[in-house]
Amino acid sequence: MSDRTAIEILLTARRVAIVGASDDGLKASGRTQRYLKMYGFPGEVYPVNPRRESVQGTRAYPSLSDVPQTPDVAVVVLPQALVEDAVRDCGRAGVPLAIVFASGYAELGEEGVDRQQSLTRVAREAGVRIIGPNGNGAVFAPSRLTAGFMTGLDQTRWELRDDGIAFISQSGAMGAFILNMAQTEGLGVGRFVSTGNEIDLSLPMLIEQLVDEGSTRAVMGYVEGIRDGNRLVAALHKASERGVPVTLMKVGRTEQGAAAAASHTGSLAGSDDVYAGLFRRYGVQRAESIEDLLDFGRVLAGVRHPRGRRVTIVTLSGGAGALMTDYASDLGLEMASWTGEWRERMAAALPPFASVGNPIDVTGAIASDDRVLTESVSIALQHPGTDALLVLLGNMEAEEERVCASLVRLAEQSDKPLLVTWVGGSGQALKTLNAAGIPCFADPRRTMRALAAQVAFAARPALAEPVEVGADPTDLADHLLGRGATGLDEVAAKALLAAAGVPTVMEAAAGTAGDAARAAAELGFPVALKLLSVDVAHKSELGVVRLGLQTAEEVLRQAEDIVRIADQAGVADRRLVVQRMVAPEVELILGSVLDPVFGPVTMLGLGGVFAEVLADVQVRPSPVGMTEAREMIGGLRGVALLRGARGRKPADEEALARVVVDFSRLSADLGDRVESIEVNPLVIDSNGLPVAVDGLVLLPAGPTEEAS
Amino acid sequence: MSDRTAIEILLTARRVAIVGASDDGLKASGRTQRYLKMYGFPGEVYPVNPRRESVQGTRAYPSLSDVPQTPDVAVVVLPQALVEDAVRDCGRAGVPLAIVFASGYAELGEEGVDRQQSLTRVAREAGVRIIGPNGNGAVFAPSRLTAGFMTGLDQTRWELRDDGIAFISQSGAMGAFILNMAQTEGLGVGRFVSTGNEIDLSLPMLIEQLVDEGSTRAVMGYVEGIRDGNRLVAALHKASERGVPVTLMKVGRTEQGAAAAASHTGSLAGSDDVYAGLFRRYGVQRAESIEDLLDFGRVLAGVRHPRGRRVTIVTLSGGAGALMTDYASDLGLEMASWTGEWRERMAAALPPFASVGNPIDVTGAIASDDRVLTESVSIALQHPGTDALLVLLGNMEAEEERVCASLVRLAEQSDKPLLVTWVGGSGQALKTLNAAGIPCFADPRRTMRALAAQVAFAARPALAEPVEVGADPTDLADHLLGRGATGLDEVAAKALLAAAGVPTVMEAAAGTAGDAARAAAELGFPVALKLLSVDVAHKSELGVVRLGLQTAEEVLRQAEDIVRIADQAGVADRRLVVQRMVAPEVELILGSVLDPVFGPVTMLGLGGVFAEVLADVQVRPSPVGMTEAREMIGGLRGVALLRGARGRKPADEEALARVVVDFSRLSADLGDRVESIEVNPLVIDSNGLPVAVDGLVLLPAGPTEEAS
Repeated sequence: MSDRTAIEILLTARRVAIVGASDDGLKASGRTQRYLKMYGFPGEVYPVNPRRESVQGTRAYPSLSDVPQTPDVAVVVLPQALVEDAVRDCGRAGVPLAIVFASGYAELGEEGVDRQQSLTRVAREAGVRIIGPNGNGAVFAPSRLTAGFMTGLDQTRWELRDDGIAFISQSGAMGAFILNMAQTEGLGVGRFVSTGNEIDLSLPMLIEQLVDEGSTRAVMGYVEGIRDGNRLVAALHKASERGVPVTLMKVGRTEQGAAAAASHTGSLAGSDDVYAGLFRRYGVQRAESIEDLLDFGRVLAGVRHPRGRRVTIVTLSGGAGALMTDYASDLGLEMASWTGEWRERMAAALPPFASVGNPIDVTGAIASDDRVLTESVSIALQHPGTDALLVLLGNMEAEEERVCASLVRLAEQSDKPLLVTWVGGSGQALKTLNAAGIPCFADPRRTMRALAAQVAFAARPALAEPVEVGADPTDLADHLLGRGATGLDEVAAKALLAAAGVPTVMEAAAGTAGDAARAAAELGFPVALKLLSVDVAHKSELGVVRLGLQTAEEVLRQAEDIVRIADQAGVADRRLVVQRMVAPEVELILGSVLDPVFGPVTMLGLGGVFAEVLADVQVRPSPVGMTEAREMIGGLRGVALLRGARGRKPADEEALARVVVDFSRLSADLGDRVESIEVNPLVIDSNGLPVAVDGLVLLPAGPTEEAS
Repeated sequence: MSDRTAIEILLTARRVAIVGASDDGLKASGRTQRYLKMYGFPGEVYPVNPRRESVQGTRAYPSLSDVPQTPDVAVVVLPQALVEDAVRDCGRAGVPLAIVFASGYAELGEEGVDRQQSLTRVAREAGVRIIGPNGNGAVFAPSRLTAGFMTGLDQTRWELRDDGIAFISQSGAMGAFILNMAQTEGLGVGRFVSTGNEIDLSLPMLIEQLVDEGSTRAVMGYVEGIRDGNRLVAALHKASERGVPVTLMKVGRTEQGAAAAASHTGSLAGSDDVYAGLFRRYGVQRAESIEDLLDFGRVLAGVRHPRGRRVTIVTLSGGAGALMTDYASDLGLEMASWTGEWRERMAAALPPFASVGNPIDVTGAIASDDRVLTESVSIALQHPGTDALLVLLGNMEAEEERVCASLVRLAEQSDKPLLVTWVGGSGQALKTLNAAGIPCFADPRRTMRALAAQVAFAARPALAEPVEVGADPTDLADHLLGRGATGLDEVAAKALLAAAGVPTVMEAAAGTAGDAARAAAELGFPVALKLLSVDVAHKSELGVVRLGLQTAEEVLRQAEDIVRIADQAGVADRRLVVQRMVAPEVELILGSVLDPVFGPVTMLGLGGVFAEVLADVQVRPSPVGMTEAREMIGGLRGVALLRGARGRKPADEEALARVVVDFSRLSADLGDRVESIEVNPLVIDSNGLPVAVDGLVLLPAGPTEEAS
């Protein structure tokens, strides 16, 4: 195999073989060759077709081994039945990378799965990297390699502009459409791969290669389903580390959408909450729409990075200023403060009836008087309390050329982001400003969303400190999980949590009612008393939970009652557990499950109505470090409850974050040895400290013990 | 005054005077005349200018009284100082409507306010209706009246298309920009008014006139600040009644945005929650962006109304289908169910590898095979379980003409909404389909939002049954509010609520500790005991609230303690109140405040963390009827708590709605005689019934009694 990555090959390809080339440039099998010519591919094109001397006017070769120089890329345009032979030929000829268009594989369901596995094997044996099958190909502007058959290339006659923006799409159709939009709108998405069925090169692998290669300034991705979560984690980690912004549009956010996506891709969906957590971790900007994807790609590829979230808005309409203020507020941006000397400087530059507060309404004079524009924008860019400047204009067709020229000149004198909204008008200002590298949008909502993405990327969390994982946390885990029990009882579960560093409620197991009463006296009253059994899933329903017991006599009596109930219900394992009562300020839920895509993940949520009604939860692949644990806590919608809302004792957030870290390490260490771990509730006690009051560890495929 | 409304005049105007007409067609004072000519205004134009024989080649008149026939409209293009005289002249000449461009009024602050009041007076005395001042004018395509000076008219050379869509803008600049976007995008916004400072004709008045006139199919509005809330209520009521869809973009949703808007318009903001409630009541579709405003205007003006919220998605990309399913799920639309015979019919029409489930992935064959498109769309439109059909396509420049023609033909054979998303491509399909009345968008998120707006309008709540208001609910209110007290104590507040029909907790006031103990025995234990005093604002802080008392002795002892504390604190009014304890399943808050724009409004929210952290509240102008009260309950984010989430007893929602109705009538009846009423908590008891446990009535500017 080549030591060049697929991305390196595509960016620099000089020799392209087209295996199965057709003389009819309108057919799918003829288009790539025609497009290469049409867009002026400067290298060599080798059509391979045993039945023709020449194809589309270019000398053809009977087989790949006849091609005079080893191609960098083979574009296999043959039907499915002939693909495997072609890939073997690539291997023999030393072609490092093949792009396979053919469909007829796993996307058909069962009958195609075998064919796909077979092709995968053949490619591996041949030592050929594969893009596809069932994709739309690849388009790389730097090499002018138009190795695709999408008709968007055909008629629009793109500029093939490259602003260092890459776009990897798991959807062939949407990939082609969006690439088309980008190219016709003058957005330099010059590095495009449609990954198809991903038998080899997947979206995460290509993102990682793009980051490694180094010349890509922003990556856009259209995600339908990730097979290997760890590859995505690794790719996003590297992108964040190297400062390469990534924006992803992921279909299947909702339950219904995920079902549709899973049925389409044939891969398991994975929880969208995990994606959301992963995106937060690595500063991935999530596109909610195609517009977002293109807009975020545009601004993230820019060279100006906001140093903070303080924005100044310069507008010619007070109402538009208020509108943009709404958007800023929605998106967590701050309005820069204009006071003192700077306010006076701005006022001096504006007509008498302008509004100097931020939003700064410079009035319609901005159209007629170039100084109003020039001076207000210049002062705003210099203002030390401004991290980014937003200018809203509109119509002004007669003035647009002059105004655009002024804005371009002003932007050059500053390194702060300047974004323009130009509503209405001829559309020319949008083109002019975007071409000059000043992001410009027709709708102020789009502008503000794009800026917010830019700010969020610039302010993305520091990469997590390395968390040591891989070793079992304690001998206890081996002991507990290895003893072949049908499941872990509550006390064993909490012992495991405690050994991992999670503070647990003071408690004692007891074999008899008398032992329970004695244990209660040692713990101190009031206590809770429960049945302890690996056999009972729903303790509360069975009536074997007693709270707030005040005396040893009460414990004895209730314990006898519990044992009697268990006895009558035919429960074999009928021990008892006595716990110190904890008065909760707030209840949380801390859990770990095995995500089908990402493996063990850590979930932190608020309990009570927040869990029941709002599903207020933060999820991250396990393990997480302190920074990220703090970020999870801060990301809860109900975080105010932890911060002393309405007279509550504030939680010790550092202690809570530490518990999340320790728990997440347990989650990662245990891996697939446990199906799930749940601490419910994790109580914030009257000292503000977290305590695990109940614990549940579910073993894979074993009988279950649920939280009481 | 004329018996024709301003809207009737503008739609039919045949004679236009331009007062202060300038020979220079590029000046603001010359543009209207030039535009009228440019766009082929078919009626008479009378320039009025005492210093010229002719203006822009048309005979000029020294004054309005010299004009041969009474103009329908006078466009006053004079500077501010000359406007009052011009308006007086309009009155003398019998001109019913004047559009005043001049600025220099209240938008300048104090100095302009006097001038504005003076102009208002002059216009009233002259019997002339006014649009403006400080607006951008009016553009009416049916009459080809281009009575504006916005340069958008100048260079774009609009078609002046009218699809019966009106646009009323309180922002001059944004109005002009958005009108420009609409016209250049071929959206027939043919009735436009920029209302400026609204000294006479306001946005609500013009909406009402548009509805009354009858030929307008949809109204778009850009709202910066409403002065007279009741006018807006009346206008939206009428629009809903007559089935005229309204979409409004309101700036100042957020606290910061509202502050910016208030500073810009000089009017009080009013609570955005009230607007949100009003929009729900009348099925007003709220635009979150300029795109929304135009998109919603487009679909709402359509003649096809969905009968329900069941959508079928036909797409050529499985991933795009999943994406659209996400959006449908986000927006509360349902995926139509395809089973049995219909599923078979669809399968028979599709290529073998298509996916027949909804979303229906017809594969790329839709491009090459017209029958795939024709049959799948035709079957989907016939499918009885489908209320609206969404088709997603893209690129296909070679096929777009044929595909568009097929879609137009298919749409004609059905009365169901058909919306198309066409991603990428040349842009021609968007134009073709939109021109043919098939809404088409480039981003599937926009399509789904537009459809959701259409569905929400079609399914808007029935208009509230009339609620009788105006009479005081009881003599008690007169008695309580009229007795000149410093405020209402808790018992009096609840007596008022009870008289209005709100169930209140069983309680008794007591003058002494002994009386309290006797009252407790009669009520039955356990009881709550509190200080009853008009002098104490914060009962809990003073330590004069005791809960869960079990015996008469305990009540006596605690009552003596409370009286002692009150005595020591120097409280003059130190009576007691004893209440039956109510075990709450859920706690709500019911309140009424005086909104600066809308007057008394009724608020319903969930208590506890929902109030503290989430501000989960529904607000409507008082009063509300049963339908709307049910809708308020259903609109709470935490409504699941009322519906038995996690084993709770479900609330009797009808009983709760009845309480909201009765309370809202009290709120409306009392009007500005009280500053606010708060029932906190309104408890759902163990029978699922609502009970007011505490009540607070705040009198205007009087001392306060707060909820304990």
